[in-house]
Amino acid sequence: MSRLVMKFGGTSVATLDRIRRAAKRVGREVANGHEVIVIVSAMAGKTNELVGWVNETSPFYDAREYDAVVSSGENVTAGLMALTLQEMDVPARSWQGWQVPVQTTGAHGAARIEAIPTANLDARFADGMKVAVIAGFQGISPEGRITTLGRGGSDTTAVAFAAAFDAVRCDIYTDVDGVYTTDPRITSKARKLDRIAFEEMLELASLGAKVLQTRSVELAMRYGVKLRVLSSFDEYDETAGTLVCQEDEIVENNVVSGVAYSRDEAKMTLLNVDDKPGIAAAIFGPLAEAGVNVDMIVQNISEGGQTDMTFSCPIDQVKRATQAMEGAKASGGIAYTDLVADTEVAKVSVVGIGMRSHTGVAAHMFKALRDENVNIKVITTSEIKISVLIDRKYMELAVQALHDTFGLEKLGGGLES
Amino acid sequence: MSRLVMKFGGTSVATLDRIRRAAKRVGREVANGHEVIVIVSAMAGKTNELVGWVNETSPFYDAREYDAVVSSGENVTAGLMALTLQEMDVPARSWQGWQVPVQTTGAHGAARIEAIPTANLDARFADGMKVAVIAGFQGISPEGRITTLGRGGSDTTAVAFAAAFDAVRCDIYTDVDGVYTTDPRITSKARKLDRIAFEEMLELASLGAKVLQTRSVELAMRYGVKLRVLSSFDEYDETAGTLVCQEDEIVENNVVSGVAYSRDEAKMTLLNVDDKPGIAAAIFGPLAEAGVNVDMIVQNISEGGQTDMTFSCPIDQVKRATQAMEGAKASGGIAYTDLVADTEVAKVSVVGIGMRSHTGVAAHMFKALRDENVNIKVITTSEIKISVLIDRKYMELAVQALHDTFGLEKLGGGLES
Repeated sequence: MSRLVMKFGGTSVATLDRIRRAAKRVGREVANGHEVIVIVSAMAGKTNELVGWVNETSPFYDAREYDAVVSSGENVTAGLMALTLQEMDVPARSWQGWQVPVQTTGAHGAARIEAIPTANLDARFADGMKVAVIAGFQGISPEGRITTLGRGGSDTTAVAFAAAFDAVRCDIYTDVDGVYTTDPRITSKARKLDRIAFEEMLELASLGAKVLQTRSVELAMRYGVKLRVLSSFDEYDETAGTLVCQEDEIVENNVVSGVAYSRDEAKMTLLNVDDKPGIAAAIFGPLAEAGVNVDMIVQNISEGGQTDMTFSCPIDQVKRATQAMEGAKASGGIAYTDLVADTEVAKVSVVGIGMRSHTGVAAHMFKALRDENVNIKVITTSEIKISVLIDRKYMELAVQALHDTFGLEKLGGGLES
Repeated sequence: MSRLVMKFGGTSVATLDRIRRAAKRVGREVANGHEVIVIVSAMAGKTNELVGWVNETSPFYDAREYDAVVSSGENVTAGLMALTLQEMDVPARSWQGWQVPVQTTGAHGAARIEAIPTANLDARFADGMKVAVIAGFQGISPEGRITTLGRGGSDTTAVAFAAAFDAVRCDIYTDVDGVYTTDPRITSKARKLDRIAFEEMLELASLGAKVLQTRSVELAMRYGVKLRVLSSFDEYDETAGTLVCQEDEIVENNVVSGVAYSRDEAKMTLLNVDDKPGIAAAIFGPLAEAGVNVDMIVQNISEGGQTDMTFSCPIDQVKRATQAMEGAKASGGIAYTDLVADTEVAKVSVVGIGMRSHTGVAAHMFKALRDENVNIKVITTSEIKISVLIDRKYMELAVQALHDTFGLEKLGGGLES
């Protein structure tokens, strides 16, 4: 019998009424002949409450206890979902991570799933169970402690179950109706994408489009899981939401698929760094040790043995980055005259697998920004993405201009292909 | 090293601040040289919230899912308590029921603890852990599903751990400062007992004095666990609270130790029952099957082959009892002319191990009630208890009168010994 994975996020199970609505969808898929694995998040707000308690109790908490506490919200939803399905005469039971068991690494708070043995669920499906409801976001470490997978981890739970059980589809029900060409709050011209390639989704996810956890997209790509993002508030049909799929399953798309942005960026510049071999390691080693997520890196042309080194990081890590650099300077690891932090910047990116076969995208992008008098501070590129750091006050303007220039409001618009 | 069990109820861990206060007590016991096993309940109100959700979702719920949902509150408190202790530099970790594992029967919602293997905790204590924080109220069934032990079950968890780990003491921290001669809300003369015998506590617990779960007292009696009930809001000292102990550890006590009451009783009378062999089984079999907790039973003197049969049960089971009796009548199992339910009654009881060696307690009790013109409807007795069913409107009056007549306001008062 075909297996289907359905994941419901926190807003989709926020109340008993919404759990019932989600359960009805599950019931319909059972009626369609599927055995269903349902992955649930905690009811909206619950995880934040638990995280708040942990932080208030212990600012530098033991991550093992953090995991034991914050994983409890999903257990509640899983039991309630199973009960709701039973009320609808659908044979269902709940499973907590350790019962499956979802085996993870011991990296508490950000564990990775290593294996999902299928024997326990298979035995129950063979017994007539139609729905296994799984508490998302959680697993157990090799030491038998509860682990969690990081924020958005239930997406990854869903994809991992879809891979382990060879599911025909993995449907991610959320509070938006799919993946858009850009944030509809910034331009009403934003268009829902029917399909998007894994690689593009990966870039968008890591750029801050919070639809899917990055790790879940990586897993789906590796195991070829058909991943659909759709709204739990709309009626279902076969074309609902956005299908995240292999590049060759996409018949037609624009050269650029989407424009993403990230508001909370900071640009840090070390002035007059001694430009000698190993200087990059001497700078970015201490930053990594301090847990700073360095994103873009630019090294200016060296003049007279000295150079400026610029990098970007999340704005709330500026203090940590500054301390790491001052520490490295004090211990003689690096030498520089000044460290300048610009906390008024944002990152804007265009993403599209069409860029592989198309030249000129960068030139178009820079021209569109110049026409709006937006100054570019840092540029980085990958095979399917171009990102620029600009003044935050121009961010919305830049997103709108790029959305227009690449013709994203309609399929087939933009650059000639 | 000596082991100590400390249990904190819902009001004692209702907020992060109270958890800190409880943790300080634990820290002091560690400083005193103990290895401590802490049993925690859910934060006050949490379990009720979860039970409410289950009932709203599914009136006739799957008890396995009920247990999976309602057990989650204790997991949160256990993690927060461990974190709080760590903040105080006390080496601690949390354990959920399945991690110990606390092995129970499969009677979901009212499971009994069958075994608590000590190996996992012992290994961690040997490693330097000073406090094991255990999520109370929960365990796992032989099938690996989560079970709960019924309301008040964390008391039983505490006593079971004290027995398994051979603890020097089991301290139950709650929102009252011990066991009283009667409810202080009914008479200000109520006096805190320094010591009470297991047998007396058992009678009081089952009579509705909600200080300890009955099962926990049974276990403590069987395994000789020194059980102390004390307030988490008072400063600790060696004589705090009430020690529940063996009869021979009590040097002096009154003949009657306490007056208990139960407000929510109903009296049911079957009129003109055919008085033939097996009639009691024909009545009480169907009641047991319907889940009615029959308490007192009285059979009137038979006249002309017919008799009246009276029993008491909790007031919220009257409907269920009535249906069971009408069903038995309809199927020809029993014959009676009428079923009369009196829902305006209460039970008042005097309890004391001194009654074993003292005669005249019943006579004193009946005289005291007669002096207040309280009519007795049903009487039952055990070796250390006399209970009467009376009109509910006289309940407080009867408790006060009995408290006075047996001189409970001071040690050594009452009947001459």
